[in-house]
Amino acid sequence: MHLVAIGGSDAGISTALRACELDPSVDVTVVVADAYPNFSICGIPYYFSREVQPWQSLAHRTHADLEATGMNLHLDTLATGIDVNGRTLTVRDAAGTESTIAYDQLMVGTGASPSTAGIAGLDQLGPDDGVHLLHSMGDTFALERYLDEHQPETAIIVGAGYVGLEMAEALTVRGLHVTQLQRGPEVLSTLDPELGSLVRDELTRHGVDVFTGTRIEAVTRNAGRLTVTGTRDGDTFSHSADLVLVVVGVRPNTSLLTAAGATTGAGGAVVVDEHMRTGLPNVWAAGDGVVTHHRLLGVTYLPLGTTSHKQGRVAGENAIGGNARFAGSLGTQVVKVFDVVAARTGLRDHEAAAADYAPHSHTAIADDHKRYYPGATPISIRVTGDTRDGRLLGAQLVGTRGAEISKRVDTYATALHHGMTVDGMSNLDLSYTPPLGSPWDAVQMATQAWERDARTLASLV
Amino acid sequence: MHLVAIGGSDAGISTALRACELDPSVDVTVVVADAYPNFSICGIPYYFSREVQPWQSLAHRTHADLEATGMNLHLDTLATGIDVNGRTLTVRDAAGTESTIAYDQLMVGTGASPSTAGIAGLDQLGPDDGVHLLHSMGDTFALERYLDEHQPETAIIVGAGYVGLEMAEALTVRGLHVTQLQRGPEVLSTLDPELGSLVRDELTRHGVDVFTGTRIEAVTRNAGRLTVTGTRDGDTFSHSADLVLVVVGVRPNTSLLTAAGATTGAGGAVVVDEHMRTGLPNVWAAGDGVVTHHRLLGVTYLPLGTTSHKQGRVAGENAIGGNARFAGSLGTQVVKVFDVVAARTGLRDHEAAAADYAPHSHTAIADDHKRYYPGATPISIRVTGDTRDGRLLGAQLVGTRGAEISKRVDTYATALHHGMTVDGMSNLDLSYTPPLGSPWDAVQMATQAWERDARTLASLV
Repeated sequence: MHLVAIGGSDAGISTALRACELDPSVDVTVVVADAYPNFSICGIPYYFSREVQPWQSLAHRTHADLEATGMNLHLDTLATGIDVNGRTLTVRDAAGTESTIAYDQLMVGTGASPSTAGIAGLDQLGPDDGVHLLHSMGDTFALERYLDEHQPETAIIVGAGYVGLEMAEALTVRGLHVTQLQRGPEVLSTLDPELGSLVRDELTRHGVDVFTGTRIEAVTRNAGRLTVTGTRDGDTFSHSADLVLVVVGVRPNTSLLTAAGATTGAGGAVVVDEHMRTGLPNVWAAGDGVVTHHRLLGVTYLPLGTTSHKQGRVAGENAIGGNARFAGSLGTQVVKVFDVVAARTGLRDHEAAAADYAPHSHTAIADDHKRYYPGATPISIRVTGDTRDGRLLGAQLVGTRGAEISKRVDTYATALHHGMTVDGMSNLDLSYTPPLGSPWDAVQMATQAWERDARTLASLV
Repeated sequence: MHLVAIGGSDAGISTALRACELDPSVDVTVVVADAYPNFSICGIPYYFSREVQPWQSLAHRTHADLEATGMNLHLDTLATGIDVNGRTLTVRDAAGTESTIAYDQLMVGTGASPSTAGIAGLDQLGPDDGVHLLHSMGDTFALERYLDEHQPETAIIVGAGYVGLEMAEALTVRGLHVTQLQRGPEVLSTLDPELGSLVRDELTRHGVDVFTGTRIEAVTRNAGRLTVTGTRDGDTFSHSADLVLVVVGVRPNTSLLTAAGATTGAGGAVVVDEHMRTGLPNVWAAGDGVVTHHRLLGVTYLPLGTTSHKQGRVAGENAIGGNARFAGSLGTQVVKVFDVVAARTGLRDHEAAAADYAPHSHTAIADDHKRYYPGATPISIRVTGDTRDGRLLGAQLVGTRGAEISKRVDTYATALHHGMTVDGMSNLDLSYTPPLGSPWDAVQMATQAWERDARTLASLV
């Protein structure tokens, strides 16, 4: 039995690790397009902030660690074609030499590539011009080299999602003056604006200039100076800096699979079922290149590293004869921006309404621990529930770094996993000690506040 | 409708708050034995460490806050008898005057009193002698007065449970040299010894002398010096200090209810059903005086503040005509000892075996966040699962204060609430960002390690 996994990031490596763990007798080969298998892409901003040095530290596991599990790694090797009937994969090495690899089972984890959001100029300008995307270790080295050689003093970051915010912090820490441009009405558009504004306040407090409602249409370069142009609230907008970083999301890499006959669905990603089957015999797929089964939304596209790990683990188990099922995403996410942490899980109002729930959201502010004990800080918690059946639909949290936001959102995520009601949250036996919580934890104070609010609304009908 | 709640602590106040919230037209009276309703007894150690000052800060709500909800408070009023048929309560005020209060519904939350564990001398020696128990604000004032007037330099704490450990920290911070005596083989006997030892190391690191395996039989006083005597590992044991604090658990206060005809069960506590009914017409009970419905053990006695809040809330809703049900405890607990946090939820091996589960436990060590990001610290996580059906039975965690232990145990508690399997934990969509977690959170790394361990064990059979 020869299992071949394509992709050296979360999905590919998770597939290989799981297969090696469950059946050490299986031959496992991982085909990696670059020389950096199992690197923590989510950690790249902390390399730029110099909190993580050297770059090799970003590896979840070293090359030796990986090979010790029993897998074989083919680095700098690009998968170029799948012969489904012949069960062979065509690959091209760094020297340009093509060869084939026979497989019994194939897992494709080709991931996603950075979107350019149709911004003109990005096809002409690249890292040597000071215009950067950021998705791979190659991108990382290019940006580091530019920072090192050109010592830019100002940067424009187009996009204020997770990576954009983390890079705003990193470049600010690094000494650059950062201007952050966001198309939507507020930064971190995965949160409702009233919570996103708390993140914006933190950016501003640290000297980042934030422009929301700003649609960038082009990047140009004149005499070493970069200028982005577009519109802002109907007016023309233009801003110049020494460096431009475009981080506006990703699009799935699907060509390898579609050329082999796979179909695409939500978000243009490859369709897989919950077993990570592509429909092509002996071909599995996982990660940022495939659709996402969501526990509340059905099939959607929501690429996240945690999901890739889970999907890869399922694919690895099934490829060697198992029967695992991806239980579904809840879109749980967290980001640290300077000293603020923002998290979400499940759905917000408009997402829930679009999926035919009857959502209502309410924001409560609850202390992270008993106020009498030093250091208590308020957490803003926005709970979304269904007014018809009381089902919990989602939660968003923003608070300070020490307020255990990231594990509090996990309590909501675990509750959502089980379809709990908002009311049912008060039944959870959560831990309490005055320095770290309250007899009703903040997560329960927020659901109780939602209930009171929903009861008031119902009484007004 | 007149609802009378006896008890000014968690159960009584929660009952009154819930009734006032759900139906503002109900008359609610709370009979409080002392002058300190709704004080956070769990916060007392932080008053002694002087992190919380003044003592009034320990009130969850002020007298005015409570009355603003619509409830009436009768302070310094002791409930002395219940006439179930006549629906009247006899009370005695501070002046010794008896009177009766008519009720439609009665909730009894008389709580528990400190155990003295049969230690001789505790009936003779009291606060003025430097021998202290610690359960009420009255006990708190007595100990503070002793510390202030006598400036003791050394203290013996008998007991190393939650309060004992917190007081060891508080008195150490306060400048006393503390000797902590524990009957069992390790401190914090609610954890397995291999995890409890991590807490002991933290005590020792801060100068606390810890003697385990020490059974104290008597306290004596000679020329202003206090001596505890007993046995240690079969030998006689004796130790002297300026102050002795005995914190060895509690016993339920049941006489008011049993005199009225209620029955007692587990732990000698009053039997109630999951609706907090005592079996006596129109009489409800909740809190540390009643048995505890446990989701994994059935009916037991496990007094905790969080449980009292929940039971009181259920009683308050039902006393005014609702149909709420206490969903059951999991024994979730957390304690901070200096810079270490220890938590548990669910069952340990011996508890699970006694309840006819087939438990196996495995300890993993997982970083609180990605090791490459500064400040990562290891968390010791001991997972207990059932080898027959893979069901998660419990988890114990010990780590540093910033490692989000208290909210990580909540993820396990929420999973236990829903009867998840150990394997199923890997399906949870938990949050991840490198400064705060890992793609598989520490809680999942620990359950995956349990699975590997159980698989190895099974293959050896």
